[in-house]
Amino acid sequence: MSWRIIKSSKKSSARAGTLSTRHGRFATPAFMPVATRGAVKSLSAEELHQVGSQIILANTYHLWQRPGLSIIKKAGGLHNFMNWDGPILTDSGGYQVYSLAKLRKITEQGVSFVSEIDGTKLMLTPEKAIDIQQVLGSDIMMVLDECPPYPSTVKYARNSMALTTRWAKRSLNYKKKKRISQQLLFGIVQGSVYKSLRQAHAAELSQLNFDGYALGGLAVGEPTNIMYRVLDFTVPILPFDKPRYLMGTGKPDQIVEAVKRGIDMFDCVIPTRHARHGTIYIWKSNKPQGNFFDELRIKQSKFAKDLKPLDKRCGCQTCTNYSRAYLRHLFMSGDPLGSRLASLHNVYFYLELMAKLRVLIKSGKI
Amino acid sequence: MSWRIIKSSKKSSARAGTLSTRHGRFATPAFMPVATRGAVKSLSAEELHQVGSQIILANTYHLWQRPGLSIIKKAGGLHNFMNWDGPILTDSGGYQVYSLAKLRKITEQGVSFVSEIDGTKLMLTPEKAIDIQQVLGSDIMMVLDECPPYPSTVKYARNSMALTTRWAKRSLNYKKKKRISQQLLFGIVQGSVYKSLRQAHAAELSQLNFDGYALGGLAVGEPTNIMYRVLDFTVPILPFDKPRYLMGTGKPDQIVEAVKRGIDMFDCVIPTRHARHGTIYIWKSNKPQGNFFDELRIKQSKFAKDLKPLDKRCGCQTCTNYSRAYLRHLFMSGDPLGSRLASLHNVYFYLELMAKLRVLIKSGKI
Repeated sequence: MSWRIIKSSKKSSARAGTLSTRHGRFATPAFMPVATRGAVKSLSAEELHQVGSQIILANTYHLWQRPGLSIIKKAGGLHNFMNWDGPILTDSGGYQVYSLAKLRKITEQGVSFVSEIDGTKLMLTPEKAIDIQQVLGSDIMMVLDECPPYPSTVKYARNSMALTTRWAKRSLNYKKKKRISQQLLFGIVQGSVYKSLRQAHAAELSQLNFDGYALGGLAVGEPTNIMYRVLDFTVPILPFDKPRYLMGTGKPDQIVEAVKRGIDMFDCVIPTRHARHGTIYIWKSNKPQGNFFDELRIKQSKFAKDLKPLDKRCGCQTCTNYSRAYLRHLFMSGDPLGSRLASLHNVYFYLELMAKLRVLIKSGKI
Repeated sequence: MSWRIIKSSKKSSARAGTLSTRHGRFATPAFMPVATRGAVKSLSAEELHQVGSQIILANTYHLWQRPGLSIIKKAGGLHNFMNWDGPILTDSGGYQVYSLAKLRKITEQGVSFVSEIDGTKLMLTPEKAIDIQQVLGSDIMMVLDECPPYPSTVKYARNSMALTTRWAKRSLNYKKKKRISQQLLFGIVQGSVYKSLRQAHAAELSQLNFDGYALGGLAVGEPTNIMYRVLDFTVPILPFDKPRYLMGTGKPDQIVEAVKRGIDMFDCVIPTRHARHGTIYIWKSNKPQGNFFDELRIKQSKFAKDLKPLDKRCGCQTCTNYSRAYLRHLFMSGDPLGSRLASLHNVYFYLELMAKLRVLIKSGKI
């Protein structure tokens, strides 16, 4: 574990740093493209390097279900299996069990559900989540938590939070017992949108020696200004000298706002999911401040004869080589190259955003 | 026009040569990956270069219908539009009108049909086919022909052949009248599977000064041995000093057999179409003779834990970086990266096959 803060802003809570892992170091604030099933849809591992990905995220639940752990174990871990040699963060699988799995039931022990592959009854516990992530061999593991929906009552959120704390302790104990030293483990702060709960939980988890702290239960449908408010009153309670990760967020402007509030790590499917639907992020200004980006819907007929690149400011492979009209044509004619080139561009956009934010923080301008 | 034969086999009718075009030279025997709508499905132009494509084929009918000619004209031609700077061959569009278009009607003038895009009535004539291909800016244009189905009666085939000859003459005259000198024009020999017709048509077209000669109306459902027989009795009638192109063929072994019979150019959707369905070509032997390849169906469960590359003899990006188990996982989980990596491999396989054939011809071994 070596988290190093290079620069801490005097104008905001933003920090620039680096986190070293078994598979190398990445710079923060960092964005992690989402390789749900061991691939960032349609992009190769080589392209992820090319667009500047320093760390990626993979989903434990999906990989556990398919292709299953035995082949990943045989391959020597997820890095080998998908041919990605940089850092990987895996989630615990909990979020997907809550949102996707059938007949799920949460008990003190863990969460039971029915496999979507073969209908067998499965159970995910804090210990099991560690076991699976150990096989995956990720560089950063996440604890199993319970993620309350939005909105939730104070009572539900409080009980859920208490369960998450008990699971967090079991996770740390189990990792210690198994002598897992090469993989980092992050705790997850819950508490819905309630200030007293969030602050209490942040304080509680801060007492436990996690390698980093995530904020869970956000970007689950609550208004954006409420998410910002939760960051405002929760982040200051977290240890200053540990990386902070806002799970599942977000749009480019939300990332900027969260960075100013002291968040160091992000993941989100928006750049790739939007790309597949033809929504392209482009720069309106060179600086990630104010109204700095636009969303361009490439399927619109106004782009049919537009020979400009998606974004003239962008240096990605798509913008260097292809026009808006060609991209639109690929989308209209259903060629998968369209969503692939759009994904490449959007991921590049997000990673360039992070690079710009790091420069601004280091030069004291944010 | 500069077609140069480097080596002509003494053991068979095979030849190795080069054909120079406005966008560079390519080596023959050549395989042209099919960029139907201005893209070889899911592959980028840069990847086509990487896997060794020297020339590609695009479909006039599809591009005419969508995105339409005005944007391609505005882009300065198909090369710019799709960012491919090597040679391009375009077909006349006739074959697609016959097989895809609605309410098509063949007359002396040309073929009329109804647009699939907006229902307007359109007409493709020999002159119109040249006009369209001039806008596309391809390096090799094909004449409009009539392609009789298999089987056809002698009478139908004879009439069709005569029409194709009249259209061929109109095509040459029109090209001359328009002073198109930078684009080559190939004639197309028809005559179904009938020896007397094929030979007569080959002799007839040989009198016309085309830059190359294609065999059309094959690979349309006839048994493979009949196709070989047609090559046996038709190819010797064609001018020795012009390139010969077998349209729409074929499987790897068919290409080898056709090369031995004096064919110089091929195009086929098999490598990419099969790839999208998970059928992978691999080498059984280093030499393209006898039973030299296998088809591997990557979705089969026996590959679920197979960590070997698709083909250990192959140097493509897919085989260098990924395993059979990973490819299968991508197919099973529906990630478009699967068919993309499979396409990359299959096209590489075909182009390596052509390179091997060229070496064998040059060293006098075929």
